[in-house]
Amino acid sequence: MRRWNGWGDEADHFALSEDAQAFLTERLGPSRPPRDATLEQALQTVPDSRLPAGTPFQTDVRVRLLHARGQSFPDWLAMRSGQLGPYADGVALPTSHDEAAQALAVARRVGALVVPYGGGTSVVGHLSVPVSDRPVVNISLERMNRLLAVDERSLLATLGAGTPGPQIEAQLRPHGFLLGHFPQSYEYSTVGGWVVTRSSGQQSLRYGRIEQMFAAGRVITPRGELRVGGVPASSAGPDLRELILGSEGRLGLLTEVTVRVRRIPAVEDFHGVFFPNWDVAIEAVRAMVQADLPLSMLRLSNEVETETQLRLAGHPERVRWLQRYLGMRGIQRGQCMLMMGITGSAVEVRRTRRDALAIAKRFRGVHVGKTLGKSWAKNRFRGPLLRNSLWELGYAVDTVETAVNWPKVTALMRGIEQAAREALATDNERVHAFTHLSHMYRQGCSIYSTFVWRAAGDPAADLERWRRLKTRVSETIVAHGGTISHQHGVGLDHAPYLPAEKGALGMDLIRAAARELDPDQMMNPGKLFA
Amino acid sequence: MRRWNGWGDEADHFALSEDAQAFLTERLGPSRPPRDATLEQALQTVPDSRLPAGTPFQTDVRVRLLHARGQSFPDWLAMRSGQLGPYADGVALPTSHDEAAQALAVARRVGALVVPYGGGTSVVGHLSVPVSDRPVVNISLERMNRLLAVDERSLLATLGAGTPGPQIEAQLRPHGFLLGHFPQSYEYSTVGGWVVTRSSGQQSLRYGRIEQMFAAGRVITPRGELRVGGVPASSAGPDLRELILGSEGRLGLLTEVTVRVRRIPAVEDFHGVFFPNWDVAIEAVRAMVQADLPLSMLRLSNEVETETQLRLAGHPERVRWLQRYLGMRGIQRGQCMLMMGITGSAVEVRRTRRDALAIAKRFRGVHVGKTLGKSWAKNRFRGPLLRNSLWELGYAVDTVETAVNWPKVTALMRGIEQAAREALATDNERVHAFTHLSHMYRQGCSIYSTFVWRAAGDPAADLERWRRLKTRVSETIVAHGGTISHQHGVGLDHAPYLPAEKGALGMDLIRAAARELDPDQMMNPGKLFA
Repeated sequence: MRRWNGWGDEADHFALSEDAQAFLTERLGPSRPPRDATLEQALQTVPDSRLPAGTPFQTDVRVRLLHARGQSFPDWLAMRSGQLGPYADGVALPTSHDEAAQALAVARRVGALVVPYGGGTSVVGHLSVPVSDRPVVNISLERMNRLLAVDERSLLATLGAGTPGPQIEAQLRPHGFLLGHFPQSYEYSTVGGWVVTRSSGQQSLRYGRIEQMFAAGRVITPRGELRVGGVPASSAGPDLRELILGSEGRLGLLTEVTVRVRRIPAVEDFHGVFFPNWDVAIEAVRAMVQADLPLSMLRLSNEVETETQLRLAGHPERVRWLQRYLGMRGIQRGQCMLMMGITGSAVEVRRTRRDALAIAKRFRGVHVGKTLGKSWAKNRFRGPLLRNSLWELGYAVDTVETAVNWPKVTALMRGIEQAAREALATDNERVHAFTHLSHMYRQGCSIYSTFVWRAAGDPAADLERWRRLKTRVSETIVAHGGTISHQHGVGLDHAPYLPAEKGALGMDLIRAAARELDPDQMMNPGKLFA
Repeated sequence: MRRWNGWGDEADHFALSEDAQAFLTERLGPSRPPRDATLEQALQTVPDSRLPAGTPFQTDVRVRLLHARGQSFPDWLAMRSGQLGPYADGVALPTSHDEAAQALAVARRVGALVVPYGGGTSVVGHLSVPVSDRPVVNISLERMNRLLAVDERSLLATLGAGTPGPQIEAQLRPHGFLLGHFPQSYEYSTVGGWVVTRSSGQQSLRYGRIEQMFAAGRVITPRGELRVGGVPASSAGPDLRELILGSEGRLGLLTEVTVRVRRIPAVEDFHGVFFPNWDVAIEAVRAMVQADLPLSMLRLSNEVETETQLRLAGHPERVRWLQRYLGMRGIQRGQCMLMMGITGSAVEVRRTRRDALAIAKRFRGVHVGKTLGKSWAKNRFRGPLLRNSLWELGYAVDTVETAVNWPKVTALMRGIEQAAREALATDNERVHAFTHLSHMYRQGCSIYSTFVWRAAGDPAADLERWRRLKTRVSETIVAHGGTISHQHGVGLDHAPYLPAEKGALGMDLIRAAARELDPDQMMNPGKLFA
């Protein structure tokens, strides 16, 4: 059973070793486990529905509570404290495009606001229920989770927008295909959610961002159906797929998604490479991506993340052996770990491995084989479980991510970490901040930073701490010219920073599009823009 | 000196051999050379300017005539008949973003309509001057042709939007870079024009469409400046670059363009491969592109184009030798020629050549070496010159292009040719129609058809013939679900077919964007949408 107030399945724990706990105490001081509300307590906070009788919306308190929140930090505090409101007045669970259209029509008829819901994994507040005099409903696409059509010659697959990662791949596999979109939220997040938030998966280097995969879609808008895409490429005016991508529910409800798929590759390896310091490491990954090597992933951890990952892994003996080996090869403190994915036919993988390791060597990189890579691949979607374990020890965790051109990467990364480390200084609290670069482009890369700090033990105080941290870090990103999000979207949490990026006229364009398709402003109000 | 009433430089002729002329007579019947107007006669048709004195717009008749038209078929008839009007009342030739902004501000102040002008190569009517009670001005970016900045680490170059292909590459070369955008109009068309019409170059398989190259831009809109792009990737809402791409001047004036560039490759080869028939040939190119081979070009001519190209080449003796060789290898009538570009380091080129020829062989393809490829590469931008030569013999030429998913390619290609061949039947005139596939995607490909027919010798009759042909062919494209343009844009000629592709709500979105940035509808009215 999926956790109602955290990440993942209830049976699934990410145990922290004693050594890992010692590492955190050393960095942040001792912590106090929180007192979380129970589900029963939380259910007490769900008020009566304001919907009239006879709509297709379910109104029982449990289903409304389970759709009230995503996984943003404010969502997390709301869940853990049992105060998940405001709640939608009802939840529709359509199983087809037509049922979804009908739910939207009913919502419109009763004057309701609509919050579209997919896998419930948003980390920036896309799913927050607005406070309104109008009723509010969720339209959840979770039952629209089937493969609807396959075009084997054009390598296209059409899916219900609510299909989550594992069900996509399981339904494509019998056809010999895979999609290859693997964000960390893969187990729960859905193809429709990926499209409307412009998601990017861990192996985007091979498979592309969701923008490159999204070939066509059906959108139910308050004014009727909009179909976008369908041809391989076109010069017939602006590309309207690119308005749906990142529209975050403001333009309508994406119900069906056609994606570009690939044949299942024969071989996939993940190699570990250690570099003596950050400055050579970043030049090495830039050289690899600009040489157009057909790698499937480059994921470079900075010094602090490298150390943190090795400590949290919970195998101190193996790490000592690794360090002894790296020491003999001249790599000591300040080392940076690169995880390198190579995917394809046996011949291609061999070729790319050779080419990539040759570049790594030029930058003093030391190859440590596939053991660390295997372990990374095994745990690739388990990272968010750590948030449960840390919280239960008394530590809060959040992440931010951005992207920027190569000349700005290091300064922005240092700036983000510095801003985070100083954010709670007035409380005399430290923040443990570490970073990796996870999505590489010829032009630049993404920067993904994680922050761990001690929970205050009180929801209001914790929210205030987080807000200070988030503000400091977001302002740093804006000041350096980074995008406010490379892969999570805008939602509520990033909306204040979007105008700096799009400009006043750019915001006007986005608002004009929403006004055109949603004249009554019923679709996901407050998200993306106020 | 550039031709005022045709393609290319006045000194540049594409002579047709006697054999080539015989081929046309055989297909279409004997032709009669037309009587074209002289420049002096044409200049007589330019009326007085309606602009007030003291604006930055040049009003002399010659400059106005030289900016009145593009290269669409109606443009061509207008030029050849010396009736190029309507004419703009003045032409601004700014040399910087600020001067361009000033020209637009003056246009706005005097209530003028603005037709942006780049290289004058539009083939779908982007440059037509509207008939209006308001004055009309051209803002030509042809003097904004300089490389403004290079970011060597991020592989970015910023250019004046009016920079044509050869000047882009000449200015990048000293930095060791190239852009790699080679549409057939390369010698004259500009980077800004490529962006606002979503252009695609001959080697898009390696370098991508202009969409993939366009990293950032500055747009002067009637409401002020809009900047788009700048980061390698983002999930911060809809991508506004994608609204500028294909905006055809309706949203504002694109003045500066930042493009993604590459290091100059060491080796570039073009190989010829012949297939015994169309059905295996198309399966071969689909296999190549879906195998992700790093080719730089795949250009597959159908049976009629293969025959036509070999006949028009003007070397009957060499062609006979080629046919003798192909015959021994089992390739006779119905043969299809593939031109295959391979670009990169020496190692990569060797590897890709081997992989691609192995696939070709599986489909009974016969490699004929690099001779034909060298000749193709030498003449790669000279095709449009043929239009001059044919016209002067009495033949009219036009092309259409679309893109569609793989399962529909052959039927649409046959349908286009059939529609064209029948279009002039009521006049007892034949149309010689032939096709190649020039841009390959995993999902499908573009289809590029050329039509040659006898000119009637009278502008009105010729326009009517063309309109019948264009309508029949465009309706066929729409009926098969093809895009109305893969690489030329919409302009005037394709505007009637855009709603079938975008849908009513999609058109509303495009109109809403234009209304938002251009409330007085001064920007390029009538293009893209009515």
